Amino acid sequence: MNNNSGTGREMFEWAVELFPHCRSITGPGLRTTLNYFQNIVPELQIHGIASGTQVFDWVVPQEWRIKSAKLTDPNGDVVADFADSNLHVVNYAVSVDRKLSLSELQAHLYSREDMPEAIPYVTSYYSPHWGFCLEHSKRSALPDGEYQAFIDSEHVDGELNFADLVIPGESDQEILFTSYACHPSMANNELSGPVVLIALARWVQSLDRRKYTYRFVLAPETIGAIAYLSQNLNHLQAHVIAGYVITCVGDDGGYAYLPSRTGTTLADEVAIAALEGRDLDFTRYSFLDRGSDERQYCSPKVDLPMASLLRSKYGTYPEYHTSLDNLDFISAKGLGESLSMYQDCIRILEHNEIYECVEKCEPQLGRRNLRPPQNSAGAGQPTLSEIQSNTSNILAYADGKTDVVGLSRVTGISVFDIIDGCALLKSNQLLEIAAID
Amino acid sequence: MNNNSGTGREMFEWAVELFPHCRSITGPGLRTTLNYFQNIVPELQIHGIASGTQVFDWVVPQEWRIKSAKLTDPNGDVVADFADSNLHVVNYAVSVDRKLSLSELQAHLYSREDMPEAIPYVTSYYSPHWGFCLEHSKRSALPDGEYQAFIDSEHVDGELNFADLVIPGESDQEILFTSYACHPSMANNELSGPVVLIALARWVQSLDRRKYTYRFVLAPETIGAIAYLSQNLNHLQAHVIAGYVITCVGDDGGYAYLPSRTGTTLADEVAIAALEGRDLDFTRYSFLDRGSDERQYCSPKVDLPMASLLRSKYGTYPEYHTSLDNLDFISAKGLGESLSMYQDCIRILEHNEIYECVEKCEPQLGRRNLRPPQNSAGAGQPTLSEIQSNTSNILAYADGKTDVVGLSRVTGISVFDIIDGCALLKSNQLLEIAAID
Amino acid sequence: MNNNSGTGREMFEWAVELFPHCRSITGPGLRTTLNYFQNIVPELQIHGIASGTQVFDWVVPQEWRIKSAKLTDPNGDVVADFADSNLHVVNYAVSVDRKLSLSELQAHLYSREDMPEAIPYVTSYYSPHWGFCLEHSKRSALPDGEYQAFIDSEHVDGELNFADLVIPGESDQEILFTSYACHPSMANNELSGPVVLIALARWVQSLDRRKYTYRFVLAPETIGAIAYLSQNLNHLQAHVIAGYVITCVGDDGGYAYLPSRTGTTLADEVAIAALEGRDLDFTRYSFLDRGSDERQYCSPKVDLPMASLLRSKYGTYPEYHTSLDNLDFISAKGLGESLSMYQDCIRILEHNEIYECVEKCEPQLGRRNLRPPQNSAGAGQPTLSEIQSNTSNILAYADGKTDVVGLSRVTGISVFDIIDGCALLKSNQLLEIAAID
Repeated sequence: MNNNSGTGREMFEWAVELFPHCRSITGPGLRTTLNYFQNIVPELQIHGIASGTQVFDWVVPQEWRIKSAKLTDPNGDVVADFADSNLHVVNYAVSVDRKLSLSELQAHLYSREDMPEAIPYVTSYYSPHWGFCLEHSKRSALPDGEYQAFIDSEHVDGELNFADLVIPGESDQEILFTSYACHPSMANNELSGPVVLIALARWVQSLDRRKYTYRFVLAPETIGAIAYLSQNLNHLQAHVIAGYVITCVGDDGGYAYLPSRTGTTLADEVAIAALEGRDLDFTRYSFLDRGSDERQYCSPKVDLPMASLLRSKYGTYPEYHTSLDNLDFISAKGLGESLSMYQDCIRILEHNEIYECVEKCEPQLGRRNLRPPQNSAGAGQPTLSEIQSNTSNILAYADGKTDVVGLSRVTGISVFDIIDGCALLKSNQLLEIAAID
Repeated sequence: MNNNSGTGREMFEWAVELFPHCRSITGPGLRTTLNYFQNIVPELQIHGIASGTQVFDWVVPQEWRIKSAKLTDPNGDVVADFADSNLHVVNYAVSVDRKLSLSELQAHLYSREDMPEAIPYVTSYYSPHWGFCLEHSKRSALPDGEYQAFIDSEHVDGELNFADLVIPGESDQEILFTSYACHPSMANNELSGPVVLIALARWVQSLDRRKYTYRFVLAPETIGAIAYLSQNLNHLQAHVIAGYVITCVGDDGGYAYLPSRTGTTLADEVAIAALEGRDLDFTRYSFLDRGSDERQYCSPKVDLPMASLLRSKYGTYPEYHTSLDNLDFISAKGLGESLSMYQDCIRILEHNEIYECVEKCEPQLGRRNLRPPQNSAGAGQPTLSEIQSNTSNILAYADGKTDVVGLSRVTGISVFDIIDGCALLKSNQLLEIAAID
Repeated sequence: MNNNSGTGREMFEWAVELFPHCRSITGPGLRTTLNYFQNIVPELQIHGIASGTQVFDWVVPQEWRIKSAKLTDPNGDVVADFADSNLHVVNYAVSVDRKLSLSELQAHLYSREDMPEAIPYVTSYYSPHWGFCLEHSKRSALPDGEYQAFIDSEHVDGELNFADLVIPGESDQEILFTSYACHPSMANNELSGPVVLIALARWVQSLDRRKYTYRFVLAPETIGAIAYLSQNLNHLQAHVIAGYVITCVGDDGGYAYLPSRTGTTLADEVAIAALEGRDLDFTRYSFLDRGSDERQYCSPKVDLPMASLLRSKYGTYPEYHTSLDNLDFISAKGLGESLSMYQDCIRILEHNEIYECVEKCEPQLGRRNLRPPQNSAGAGQPTLSEIQSNTSNILAYADGKTDVVGLSRVTGISVFDIIDGCALLKSNQLLEIAAID
């Protein structure tokens, strides 16, 4: 596995530059972020869909624009300032400029008793509301008296933005990758997904040959995915054979797999083969643990074959949805490894042929230098590379019905060794492709 | 779960009144029992099939009528008297009036060395025979000498009786419940089955709406089931979609499930969902452990989808088939709980629709008050009822192919919460019924 | 199970007489061995296929004829002499007559550091080569100096020999048994397979009735199987319904099962039923552990339903492929038991009918003396033979779709008791054959 250490550092730098922006499901923060990525991959197309547009059961919300926000205590001390952290304001909050007592204020304060030094991330998209988020330790010490709550924000007609990029291949069957760019200053959830998605897209562009067409989508979570699906559903249902929601891929802890709704799609099989093929330990979640855009892509009437490979999954690490999910939580190493993991999925998909052995009975491997000339249990014999030693198992199961991922499963051989072994056998005219899939 | 405490006491009273009668597979004891139940549910139909009638491989036996029986020892002391317990006489015994030595008598005595204070229950239906059953402690102490064996019984042409009740519903598809009324003075096996069946029938009659037609059958075990099937097989095969043999449902110990022959019928799925949906621990038997009328209803050329939910199963408790399976062994509480268990099966069957979500992608639950308006991992947020929190999982799997029982299995949510959740989503126009099954 | 003790001793004697011959994949040793077996079973047909003939991807090699071979040390002492053990010479070695130093010689020496007192078995069939095999203890003590390597062998055009025997039955569907006769002086691997195969063939000839046609094949391993398949593939694919590779069946240790490629063929089901039906513990291998002619018979484009039942499997015991796999390693008892194991497979195959119960509902077993007349949980009742007690379970699953092996699996009753029970029920007109398979 290529650990992509150079690209890892590059992705980390992108995250550093994007971290301060106040993203939301609409508005300038989202747009700035998409433009930033378009500078890296100029072919990225940025789209807008007008506020008020019906998208399935939903209506595209207005743009949210915030200039400043500040909560001041009875002594005139600033308790929470948007300028210090955009998490201090409930995301998509309405404007307010009001004096109120501490007890009145409490209904507009959010903190985490279990994480007293963290600013929690709170949103209120479809219910007009204002509020401040702050450290529980600070909240507990707030003096009685009159507070000043000030948020200078507005909701205006505009558009919801998203971006996509289609990289054509030999086939019009598509592999789909998505991530979302609506979270303000948090790193693993969610700048890691977008930066890995962009690096992956750039890598796919660089490939000499692509069997499949690749589609990359970057949109706000939930409403953006719904908007994108509302415009592209028929095409996607007709063309996508596997896809992945890229999210929470920034830290360098363990690996995780979240299946599609059925858990049996090509995306699932390839994801598992990729992790097992590198001997990576991973946590196997259930679709019941889902929480990102697979909720839309895998919904019954959409039903795309989408799984997710993650590192520390949303909802499972203490720093999740707080100010502690910051740039210290992610690393160049983690981002690079996650990129490799998805590159592996692509490698497997591109090589996932159904092979058939050419000969009846076993072919004579010896005269092709695919096994040692003397049969001996003793020492001192020439040994073969691992690729060669896998050939007879590949030939035994290459029945014209089993794809490369299936060969790996039935033989217990890493999918990457299967790919190499099949290539060797094909170059020796011992395997042929049974069907282009 | 409704524990039916009032109905439990009522069922127990029925058992108290029916306990003394000397039931057999034919004759006045059986008839009296069926008449007793007809007084409770007047719509119950009592049928007779003449002695000598061929029913599949069997011939309907003559009626057995017994007046008295007594075994007297050499001293003139009464060793066993039918008047004390009808279990003292081998059920269906031929008459005898004969003096014989203790050693000659032994071939006609039945006792249980492992249960020395119990009178065993012995039958000899199709092989003319007489015998006395008694406590092993008493048998061991019998003095040598001449005994007087006296049984005043007769076998006469008459009829074999059984009863049924059909309660129509909107569909002519049927749910079948059966039990048997041929056991003399024993309580769990078997007065519990008949009294729960009758209480269940009365409850089904009381329902405002019935999707399905319900059929209740009370007959002698084995020969009665065979006679009933010989008259109704084609109709039952065409209409019954699920059924249950109700037996051994009187005590308030654990629960048990005995599958149909394949273990995969709707009756099986609903039975398991009912027990798991109430978090009841239960013993899972194999069809190889069968022993009641599923032997007929599930036989290969009959092949009805019949399972069984029980409490202490026949053959598994020491008191089984002895005088110790008496009214102390069962309870109003146990009977009431067992009734609830079968009512639950009916509730599930009546609501076991296949739903399809109406929308593409997830619907917007927030504006329908089906989820909290603010998304926050923090405290102080409005919480939803459990019904509401299940909605997104129901929507994720409501694919137009999965029934309510299947939704419970795939989501791990209690089938009763699935039913409530589906009702809530249907009333919000988010689910529709995909197919009436 | 018949332990075949007499036949076991007979088979062991055959092995004793055949042990000294220097077999190879071609040549006089192989021919002598086939002729020996033809004396026992005169109907055995011996075939030859000319050197140089193309058989699928292979070419039939020349005959190997060896007269003598000797390795002499600098002192003129004999280090290894073909006359002492034919394992001392690399099988199929080219001739040599050459003086060389110890260090030059090392590339032509084979020994086993882990088995210092054993002569290893080494072959070099398709790569011209010469070499000596010897005890590692002796090799380690070899003095420096000039050695004389002398092998008097030749490779000449001739033929590759194999033998087969077809014993007709009522159906032209075939059961295939194969073994191989190309190993020099080793006993378990491989004289045990050929002697059991020949004894089994003789036993099949002796049967009064055979439902199936039986085919027995004895050939050199790999190239012989390939040659045989090249001549008979279409016929075998059209007729063989189950088959077994008989190998490593000579010792009296545990039993083992090596599945076919899919593990789901009739051969697999019968093999497992045979072992489980006798309550034999056995090691269950994977097809990935294969190593004998199932590599050819189960290859994708051949795809015959062939499994293997073994004792100590090739590659798993320390003596394997050394001079220690000698006549002490096998026993008359082991050979006899292995014969019984394959006879059991044949018994099962011959009786593996699909039965259907004749009656609707359970038949009345009592009047047919298939169950006790009184139903009593007490002691002192007549008990039934095991055959009779299995009848109701057989009847419950005899649905016209389940074969005898399937009845055993679903009821947990030994397949041999199922066979007996089905015969009893058939003779009572309670079962009929649903389909001749």
